[in-house]
Amino acid sequence: MSFSPRLQALLTALRCLPGIGPKSAQRIAFYLLEKDRDGASTLAVALRSALDGVGLCERCRMFAEEQLCPICADAKRDSTTVCVVETPADVVAIEESGGFHGLYFVLMGRLSPLDGVGPDQLGVELLRRELEAGHIRELILATSATVEGEATAAYLAGVAAQRDVRATRIAHGVPMGGELEYVDGSTLSLAIAARTELADI
Amino acid sequence: MSFSPRLQALLTALRCLPGIGPKSAQRIAFYLLEKDRDGASTLAVALRSALDGVGLCERCRMFAEEQLCPICADAKRDSTTVCVVETPADVVAIEESGGFHGLYFVLMGRLSPLDGVGPDQLGVELLRRELEAGHIRELILATSATVEGEATAAYLAGVAAQRDVRATRIAHGVPMGGELEYVDGSTLSLAIAARTELADI
Repeated sequence: MSFSPRLQALLTALRCLPGIGPKSAQRIAFYLLEKDRDGASTLAVALRSALDGVGLCERCRMFAEEQLCPICADAKRDSTTVCVVETPADVVAIEESGGFHGLYFVLMGRLSPLDGVGPDQLGVELLRRELEAGHIRELILATSATVEGEATAAYLAGVAAQRDVRATRIAHGVPMGGELEYVDGSTLSLAIAARTELADI
Repeated sequence: MSFSPRLQALLTALRCLPGIGPKSAQRIAFYLLEKDRDGASTLAVALRSALDGVGLCERCRMFAEEQLCPICADAKRDSTTVCVVETPADVVAIEESGGFHGLYFVLMGRLSPLDGVGPDQLGVELLRRELEAGHIRELILATSATVEGEATAAYLAGVAAQRDVRATRIAHGVPMGGELEYVDGSTLSLAIAARTELADI
């Protein structure tokens, strides 16, 4: 059926949200108009405000409202260790694990020549300058365990080597608590190939 | 982890969308800020525009930008038959089925005394006036097949009877193409109890 122009515009605009198809867009639009006009109004304001005020950190390319993101601005973080990740969501995941206290560098993607994503799009020049500044002692490459993620890690390891910075890769293998039965074959082969010596107790 | 204020405000605001929890809100916010700032901007404008311009049709309570919704304003529709539904989404579903050419009346809910939803909240007074105007010959009650939907239908049948308007209820039973094996028990019992005589061929 045909909707009135403003409603149709809202339905179309909602489709820009990831994972929202026509049915979900209709459900969301009707819900907001029927039951939560205040929420919709707040959302419109919050979107505008975030678009106007949220940019990228000058140092690590994480989302930031100031020149530096809260992590880079935190003097208590270990600035000698930098963890390179693909997306801001990866930063959140690592922060929530609580096991890392260094800084990050967010590529906002991974090398993918076919899609036109090269080192320039990933801010590698900025990373290179940070490495040249000399305060980084270790670059932890936490790109994803995909072909492109591995290629990106290999490329960045080269960049680090040129500046005599140690580059490490996060470990891959069977997840903690993972039942072997449910782990996929390629992870299992890798876990067996990359087995480590058990230290004597 | 703690986000910057505008980003946190956006994450909170996104939670007003139905079915969006904290993880989805983060995914949506990061996606919009990383990959689709134009889409987010369009969405903010579309939300504001819909909130300002979309109200309820004076006659049927469907969403409308003018006094009458496009369906009520369409002179080709049969105004003697009115189908009463609970939500605007029901109107869309019936319109898309293509089997109905009358008008609608949208309750925007169903009778639910415990939640404080009585006839006033459902616009029954408006429906009563339409019935009194005398041009409606049949009121099709298409509220949902739940206890509250049935109660609402029964109540509205009474309202129609007071004005000597014929009230009908949509048929309930086994869906078309439905394998009996997968139809729930209460639908099956109802389908058997409400069996109809097969006409001689």
